[in-house]
Amino acid sequence: MADLLKKLKSWSSVWRDIATTTSDKELPSLSADLPEDEIAQVRDQMKACLDIKGGEVSARSRAAALGHAYLELNKTGRQRFLEILADDFATDNAKVEQAIADFQAAETDEEKREREIALRRSLEPPRMTLLRQFNALPDGVKFLVDLRADLLKMSRDNSRLKIVERDLKDLLISWFDVGFLELRQLTWHSPAAILEKIAEYEAVHSIKSWNDLKNRLARDRRLFAFFHPRMPDEPLIFVEVALVNGMSDNVQELLDEEAPLLNPETADTAIFYSISNAQTGLAGISFGNFLIKKVVGALSKDLPNIKNFATLSPIPGFQAWLDQALAKGDSTLLNPKERDALKKASGQKGAKGGLKALLETSAWKNDPEAHDALKEPLMRLCARYLLEAKRKGTRTLDPVSHFHLSNGARMERLNWLGDTSSKGMKQSAGMMINYLYKLNDIEKNHESYQTNGKIVASSQIKGLRKG
Amino acid sequence: MADLLKKLKSWSSVWRDIATTTSDKELPSLSADLPEDEIAQVRDQMKACLDIKGGEVSARSRAAALGHAYLELNKTGRQRFLEILADDFATDNAKVEQAIADFQAAETDEEKREREIALRRSLEPPRMTLLRQFNALPDGVKFLVDLRADLLKMSRDNSRLKIVERDLKDLLISWFDVGFLELRQLTWHSPAAILEKIAEYEAVHSIKSWNDLKNRLARDRRLFAFFHPRMPDEPLIFVEVALVNGMSDNVQELLDEEAPLLNPETADTAIFYSISNAQTGLAGISFGNFLIKKVVGALSKDLPNIKNFATLSPIPGFQAWLDQALAKGDSTLLNPKERDALKKASGQKGAKGGLKALLETSAWKNDPEAHDALKEPLMRLCARYLLEAKRKGTRTLDPVSHFHLSNGARMERLNWLGDTSSKGMKQSAGMMINYLYKLNDIEKNHESYQTNGKIVASSQIKGLRKG
Amino acid sequence: MADLLKKLKSWSSVWRDIATTTSDKELPSLSADLPEDEIAQVRDQMKACLDIKGGEVSARSRAAALGHAYLELNKTGRQRFLEILADDFATDNAKVEQAIADFQAAETDEEKREREIALRRSLEPPRMTLLRQFNALPDGVKFLVDLRADLLKMSRDNSRLKIVERDLKDLLISWFDVGFLELRQLTWHSPAAILEKIAEYEAVHSIKSWNDLKNRLARDRRLFAFFHPRMPDEPLIFVEVALVNGMSDNVQELLDEEAPLLNPETADTAIFYSISNAQTGLAGISFGNFLIKKVVGALSKDLPNIKNFATLSPIPGFQAWLDQALAKGDSTLLNPKERDALKKASGQKGAKGGLKALLETSAWKNDPEAHDALKEPLMRLCARYLLEAKRKGTRTLDPVSHFHLSNGARMERLNWLGDTSSKGMKQSAGMMINYLYKLNDIEKNHESYQTNGKIVASSQIKGLRKG
Amino acid sequence: MADLLKKLKSWSSVWRDIATTTSDKELPSLSADLPEDEIAQVRDQMKACLDIKGGEVSARSRAAALGHAYLELNKTGRQRFLEILADDFATDNAKVEQAIADFQAAETDEEKREREIALRRSLEPPRMTLLRQFNALPDGVKFLVDLRADLLKMSRDNSRLKIVERDLKDLLISWFDVGFLELRQLTWHSPAAILEKIAEYEAVHSIKSWNDLKNRLARDRRLFAFFHPRMPDEPLIFVEVALVNGMSDNVQELLDEEAPLLNPETADTAIFYSISNAQTGLAGISFGNFLIKKVVGALSKDLPNIKNFATLSPIPGFQAWLDQALAKGDSTLLNPKERDALKKASGQKGAKGGLKALLETSAWKNDPEAHDALKEPLMRLCARYLLEAKRKGTRTLDPVSHFHLSNGARMERLNWLGDTSSKGMKQSAGMMINYLYKLNDIEKNHESYQTNGKIVASSQIKGLRKG
Repeated sequence: MADLLKKLKSWSSVWRDIATTTSDKELPSLSADLPEDEIAQVRDQMKACLDIKGGEVSARSRAAALGHAYLELNKTGRQRFLEILADDFATDNAKVEQAIADFQAAETDEEKREREIALRRSLEPPRMTLLRQFNALPDGVKFLVDLRADLLKMSRDNSRLKIVERDLKDLLISWFDVGFLELRQLTWHSPAAILEKIAEYEAVHSIKSWNDLKNRLARDRRLFAFFHPRMPDEPLIFVEVALVNGMSDNVQELLDEEAPLLNPETADTAIFYSISNAQTGLAGISFGNFLIKKVVGALSKDLPNIKNFATLSPIPGFQAWLDQALAKGDSTLLNPKERDALKKASGQKGAKGGLKALLETSAWKNDPEAHDALKEPLMRLCARYLLEAKRKGTRTLDPVSHFHLSNGARMERLNWLGDTSSKGMKQSAGMMINYLYKLNDIEKNHESYQTNGKIVASSQIKGLRKG
Repeated sequence: MADLLKKLKSWSSVWRDIATTTSDKELPSLSADLPEDEIAQVRDQMKACLDIKGGEVSARSRAAALGHAYLELNKTGRQRFLEILADDFATDNAKVEQAIADFQAAETDEEKREREIALRRSLEPPRMTLLRQFNALPDGVKFLVDLRADLLKMSRDNSRLKIVERDLKDLLISWFDVGFLELRQLTWHSPAAILEKIAEYEAVHSIKSWNDLKNRLARDRRLFAFFHPRMPDEPLIFVEVALVNGMSDNVQELLDEEAPLLNPETADTAIFYSISNAQTGLAGISFGNFLIKKVVGALSKDLPNIKNFATLSPIPGFQAWLDQALAKGDSTLLNPKERDALKKASGQKGAKGGLKALLETSAWKNDPEAHDALKEPLMRLCARYLLEAKRKGTRTLDPVSHFHLSNGARMERLNWLGDTSSKGMKQSAGMMINYLYKLNDIEKNHESYQTNGKIVASSQIKGLRKG
Repeated sequence: MADLLKKLKSWSSVWRDIATTTSDKELPSLSADLPEDEIAQVRDQMKACLDIKGGEVSARSRAAALGHAYLELNKTGRQRFLEILADDFATDNAKVEQAIADFQAAETDEEKREREIALRRSLEPPRMTLLRQFNALPDGVKFLVDLRADLLKMSRDNSRLKIVERDLKDLLISWFDVGFLELRQLTWHSPAAILEKIAEYEAVHSIKSWNDLKNRLARDRRLFAFFHPRMPDEPLIFVEVALVNGMSDNVQELLDEEAPLLNPETADTAIFYSISNAQTGLAGISFGNFLIKKVVGALSKDLPNIKNFATLSPIPGFQAWLDQALAKGDSTLLNPKERDALKKASGQKGAKGGLKALLETSAWKNDPEAHDALKEPLMRLCARYLLEAKRKGTRTLDPVSHFHLSNGARMERLNWLGDTSSKGMKQSAGMMINYLYKLNDIEKNHESYQTNGKIVASSQIKGLRKG
Repeated sequence: MADLLKKLKSWSSVWRDIATTTSDKELPSLSADLPEDEIAQVRDQMKACLDIKGGEVSARSRAAALGHAYLELNKTGRQRFLEILADDFATDNAKVEQAIADFQAAETDEEKREREIALRRSLEPPRMTLLRQFNALPDGVKFLVDLRADLLKMSRDNSRLKIVERDLKDLLISWFDVGFLELRQLTWHSPAAILEKIAEYEAVHSIKSWNDLKNRLARDRRLFAFFHPRMPDEPLIFVEVALVNGMSDNVQELLDEEAPLLNPETADTAIFYSISNAQTGLAGISFGNFLIKKVVGALSKDLPNIKNFATLSPIPGFQAWLDQALAKGDSTLLNPKERDALKKASGQKGAKGGLKALLETSAWKNDPEAHDALKEPLMRLCARYLLEAKRKGTRTLDPVSHFHLSNGARMERLNWLGDTSSKGMKQSAGMMINYLYKLNDIEKNHESYQTNGKIVASSQIKGLRKG
């Protein structure tokens, strides 16, 4: 945020110089934790913004000074700053009650409509205006997105701040409407400053070096991101795609910097192997659905040979689910033969032996006996996890699975040893799954999953579950 | 709109091809006036959009089809289309009443806050969602701006549509927040397509030809406009500036294509000689204030020699005010000596003679006697109009005057024969006024005008009023 | 050139300020016709440039001052300026003779090669260096192109300047190598400043207004131009293309602003209806060949439905050729029956009657009798002109014909009343011709035309010649 | 070059598809070392290019195939390829002799001029045409630059290739005229692909990591490079600048990634701490002079506070010169007192002790006694080296010194321990020098150095020499 701070400083001085005398606009500099006796200053400045004192341009200049001050506060100071917004710039209950009374007393349709609007207005808290005014800052949108990231963290144990967070979310939902977003393909010719952020924000298969990044931008790769016009250097969400022949079954190969390049013109399949949200402050505002479909559209147009669109996805919740099932002592997990083989392979006896013990030895994948004993039961259990584990009734428990099924994809193939990184081994015993986006079925799949939680899956996966 | 229609067509087919089967998304083609028996189809499509049937991407595709259909309707058809939005997608009164009851029954602060949000949500009519979905169209923002232009016209005598218009205005206020706007300087190197629109939208001194336009983009001129990132080819508002020495006192000279070019580096004054709003659909959403101040900032930085920022402005309401005053027989308008001189100059006697008669002879400016008889009283009356004529208590009656005074300018100089075009002669007997933007006083001027209607004017203008 | 002059001024002052003391670099201001007693100053400044006095950067600054001075001279002054270049900065004959002697005395191969280079260097006149130094001016390349335009005009009756013109041509040939040129599509979104130049430079069917221009940039049109990276606002050559169904047979239709738009996606034919060179100073440096083939390539890629590429071309030399043949009394031009019909139609008798008399009545195209009497013989004569009239043995006499045949096109169809503008009527009795670019035959056609003047023509045209 | 190869392939197929039948244009694929029996094919293809067979566009297509073939040859093959150019496409001696005879026989001035041109033409070898034709390749200019890099290497021991190298150099001198070059500032927002090349080409202080590079693009740094319009991704030469207060005396500080950032607005000095040529194939074609002066101009304009422009430069030839002087037993190098101190510090006796012995212990800089014994004599000797060591009479022996003195800089300050990297210690015993660019003196300094080798130096440096 140091950069932002710098820009902000220069900016507020610009507005100052341009249009106004400055004496009353600048906040005196505040202590980092915003002690009790400085709170009034902040509150007064906020009021002056809302009163549009000196005109709208001056009000924006005051908002800039406030934004600037906020960025220099520490955690305690920021919390106090936001609490002022929560407490002193909420809706006015008396006005709301009056508006309700008026609304209920309306006699004609036209009156009703007018008073409905008046009631709606009375319910919009004054702080909304101030939040909007921050948009005139340079990088004001980024400021607000980061402000919400602060609010999300703080409001976990501060219920007063929750409503400010939700007000800000409403504002961001409106401003980040998908119609405003710009799809850009990033390449090795993109600005280093943006690529650096991709490396920082990648959340699925972390980017280890500039060479690793360059490999993901090679001739047989594509990287697409959504940007907002007022945050041109900040990706919102991005997806990494490999152009291959046939559906990839392991990610090691895709990340191998030494692997030979394919000719993208002749590839028949696009594999979406990583999708990452980049802005914590946009949590709960979803673009992934649009991103995937726009990218499918762009690739279809550019590379008519591509016939299949699929993911190679992690199964982040499997191991946790399995641990819980084992802890509960669920006897349906393994059959006796498997249990014996696992005990034997783990070289341990009794309760401590078996599946769990083996999985805890990180080296099982290189031990042929352990490997053979694990493969069948693990794939079955994973298929069972994917197809049966639910939350809130109809949603799959696995969040990645829920995302793709909501988008209308189907579960296509479970891949043994698809991700042998330590993260992959830990989360899902090294397994990965392909979700297939079949264009003609997307809407139907979406609808049946959305309405009654029906999961569309291939016969491989269904077969695995049965064992 | 033909272009928009074309783009829209190609676009909706793109979404169709990309992501979905299409059978149920396309509206059957509608009759131009949307007869009774086709209304249900439109309503169902709207419902499908709001139900997000088939997923958000499909919903947007359906909204595209609706937008497309709208553009092909005639006036009657469009009105019916919008009435569906007004009547069938309004808030649900029962739900609102329930939310009110819940809100009023809240017991804890936290409950209160939660239910306040719920109440606010219940007051947001479903049509808002549909309006937002149009944003995913290509040129979707322009579509909405033009939709509001339609609504403004239709709702004059159709009160059911007024609330739709106001919903849309709320949306546009949020999306056209000044922080999103981009200030661009337009030059003779700008796209012809954009310059063509400048010529079309210019509302003060109409642009007669490409040469006239080119003259307004010459080396000693500047033309700045605000653009929205999603309407990159459509100026929202623009201002034309002449770089001169001393404050210009007539617009003929500025518009003279043969006038010699000045060196902008040595000019000491920037004259804002034309400000035009370009989008009817953004009526009531004001950017002029910001535009002027941003332009002042940009010019100050680029041309440090510029010391004065002033307008050369029309006085559009003077003649109408004078006519009314004359009709009322206001005896304070002229003194006896003036009255005699005017009668003499008009060559007419009695009631018909004098001021009015003279003004109606369009040629008075070339008749020395008439000219001399008119100059003094007209300038006095105009100063009186500017300083005294009010509406709503504190606002000046003249709209241009109100705009600049609100921005913190002061009335600086009244110019005799400042605009001798037929429009200028008719509106303000050929007079123009300079408003001066003195940077250090802007805020103070704004504040005193805003708070108690105090007009800051130069001694020339005050002196003129006294006669 | 006023703009160029202005830029030049500001630029030379920049170099001055940056890097050097200035006293000796600036030329004192010169009289417009460069009288005898100022010539020494110019010569000295040129010498200082060539001596690289004060370093290369200073030399370029001096060249800027010279360029600047040149632009302010009148015709006489410019001629004198260029004569200095011709006379005082030519090769040094003594040095050339010495280099010849050395070359001829070389004993080893290596020596020979070294001295060959030395001889070549001795033959490069010093003025070449100065010409190159002008390239560091802003718009230096445009300066040189315009300088050559001056030289071409002046050297017609001033043989001393011819060699300067040829030196400059050699330089421009190297710098305007086709590999440096950039193909750009111009649209209504291109800068007005560039479109204005298109209108100015169009040489075949003059552009009458901005609406005419806009029509040539409509959805079913394409306009492509070559640009040089150092003359980004100056088209070098451009071609106008109409996307149609079937081969157009008259240009009136193409230029009709009211004609309905076609869907470019379904057009099967691209008609090149106007090709214009834009820079007089690049005469004799040919790009048209490359332009057409690059445009064919671009259109093929963008619009796969386009199957035919053809021109609709004027026949600028026909009338002049016919006049000459008539003047010579060539008795093979008409047969007796035709002669009678023409005499009758012209209403005149004897020598003055007939073809010539009719053609001179500009209104013949609207007189059914005249029209009928003229059509057959004129089309036959035009076919004969196209197929038989030659110069330099193998080249067709018609320059447009020579251009397209050299490029490998074939004569496809002669169109009666293809261009009824006064220019078209005058040049070619209203006829136009289509040249067809058949991709598989281009090279073969080129080769046979180039080698032995063989013209490839359709049976229509061959048939017409026979009558 | 793999990328280039790929582009080339796709390109030659494009030309093929567009304009011609292809059978005769493609070379059959060649063996990597171009054996005797394949040479005729290459020679014939070259001839076809020069005969412009099938037209200029076809010729360029053939040249593309040749370029393509060249890139796939190994070292031997390439040498043979170039020997064909050297031997079979040289000037025709008989024609040259004839042109000489004609030239010498000219009787009039006009004849003389015509025949001079004819003679010049006869001296231009046919291979020049082919070299130019490569310019129509994609990245054709880069191809030629790399071709010259090959030629420079090969012609060291192959005198037949030297003339081809010189022909190509002439072509490149014309095409890389400084007027064509574009100055660009590179920042952390520049394309990663270009920044990667900066890291690769940096020749003075090597770039160790992306963080090192990012530090050189920080807020208080500037990096400027020249680019050619046809090699937009390839820097030709670049300079790294630090904005500081006072003249930097060591490079460690500048390269320290942890050093605090300065405010560029308040810096008073620009330090050019690294200048690197990036293209081997442009050896002998100098831009550094222009680069420095353009950057001085750009910085002056952008940051008016910058008053001093200086370098912090290596002294690459000092150690080699010193070694030689020591080897010769030059007794004037040290005085007896120094000699004693050095012997003592080195702990060695007799001939082996002293200066050389100490310098060879890489750790002397950390040994206080050694350090103190070395400082005074080394600085004196270095000043002597800089001021007295010459080659070719008037040039300083040190190449960096020659470059800056030629540009008009003066020697300002010698800095002890200015570069303690192992390269710095080895080349110049850790010393660095500042050259000062004083704008008013540049031209004068240049002139006196150029004309009679006079070195302008500060009193510090002159004083050091005296000891």
